[in-house]
Amino acid sequence: MNKIITIGREFGSGGRELGRRLSEELGFAYYDQEIIHEIAKRTSLSEQYVNAVVEQQSFFSFPIHIGRSFYIASDPAFEQKQAVYQEQSRIIMEMAAKSDCIIVGRCADYILKEYQPFRIFVYADMESKIKRCREKGQEDENLSDKELKQKIHSIDKKRARYYEMYTGNEWGDKLNFDLCINTSHRTIKEIVPAIAKLINE
Amino acid sequence: MNKIITIGREFGSGGRELGRRLSEELGFAYYDQEIIHEIAKRTSLSEQYVNAVVEQQSFFSFPIHIGRSFYIASDPAFEQKQAVYQEQSRIIMEMAAKSDCIIVGRCADYILKEYQPFRIFVYADMESKIKRCREKGQEDENLSDKELKQKIHSIDKKRARYYEMYTGNEWGDKLNFDLCINTSHRTIKEIVPAIAKLINE
Repeated sequence: MNKIITIGREFGSGGRELGRRLSEELGFAYYDQEIIHEIAKRTSLSEQYVNAVVEQQSFFSFPIHIGRSFYIASDPAFEQKQAVYQEQSRIIMEMAAKSDCIIVGRCADYILKEYQPFRIFVYADMESKIKRCREKGQEDENLSDKELKQKIHSIDKKRARYYEMYTGNEWGDKLNFDLCINTSHRTIKEIVPAIAKLINE
Repeated sequence: MNKIITIGREFGSGGRELGRRLSEELGFAYYDQEIIHEIAKRTSLSEQYVNAVVEQQSFFSFPIHIGRSFYIASDPAFEQKQAVYQEQSRIIMEMAAKSDCIIVGRCADYILKEYQPFRIFVYADMESKIKRCREKGQEDENLSDKELKQKIHSIDKKRARYYEMYTGNEWGDKLNFDLCINTSHRTIKEIVPAIAKLINE
C-alpha cells in the first residue's frame, strides 16, 4: 500500500510550503491545486468555481458523507456542489492508489484513512501567521494587520466548518493527527529534514 | 541562556521515557522525580507527601500565581501546600539556570517561559495508553481495561486541573506547545533521534 502523508494547516502557518518541501525531501508526489485542476477538467466547471465550492460551504447544514450522499430537495446548485465533492474524493483516492504522495487539505486524512496516512497539522501563533502572509504575497499588502487577522480567522473558520461537516471531527484536534507542529518563529526549510526522519522511522 | 526542553504528557503516552531518552540523545540533564526528592529535602516533608500535594490539587478553587501568592484565610495545611509549590518553582528555576535540561511535567513550560523552552506535548489514543501501561508495570495488572481507562482519565484530569490552576492555560492545548506528538503505535526509542534533530534545527 502506498505511503500517504496528509497535511492540515492554518492559513499563514506555512503548511503548503512544508508539504511541498517534504515531497521533495521524500521523493513523494505532491497534490494541492492539482486536485482543483482535475475536478475542473472532469466536471467542465471553471477552476474558479470549483475553488469557491471547495472553500465556502456555509449552505450545508448537515454532515455529508462520501459515498453516502444524503439530500432531500432537488436543487441543481446543490447537486452540482455535491458532484464536486464526490469528484474530489474520487480524485484523491486515485492519487493515493497511484504512488506515495502528500496531499494538503481537502479532508484527505479522512478520505484516505484506510491507508493509515501520516497526518500532520501545521499551526502558528497569529503574529507569525501575519508575518508569513506579508512575506509571501502582494495580495494582502493593502490590508492593515487587523484586517489581515480577520482574513486569517475567516479562512480558518471556513476550513474548520468544511472539515467538520465532511468528517464529523473537530478541525485541528490533535487526536486526529500524528504530529502537530507549531511553525512560529521557525523556518520551514530547516525543519523539513527532521519531519521526514520522523515519518521514516 | 541554557537550552530548556519541557515535556507535558498524558498518562501512559510514554512522555517520561521520551524525556529520558531525549536527554541521553542530546546530552542534557533530565529532571523528573529528582524535583520531588529535592523539595522533600528542603522542606523536611516526606517524598510521599510532596508527591500527593503535587498530584492532587482539588482543594484550590482559584488560580495560584508563582511569586504572587494570594490567599485570605490562614490555614496551616494550605500554607504548607503553597510552600511546596513555591519550593518547586524555585528548584525548577535553579535547575534551568545550572545547565541545558529536560523537565517533565510540573508546569515547567510556564515557570521557565523566559527561557523560551522547546515545549513538547506527548499524547496517544486510549488503546495505546492502556497497552503501554500494561507493558510497563505490575502495578496495574489486577485492573480490568475499564478500570485502567478510568485510572488514566482520572490522572489526566488531575494533571489538567493542576496545570490550568497554575498557568491559566488549557492543558494540552497545542497552541502552548511547539510540538505535539502522538505516540500511538510508535516506539519511543525510534522517534527520539528525529525529535532531537527537530529541536537542534
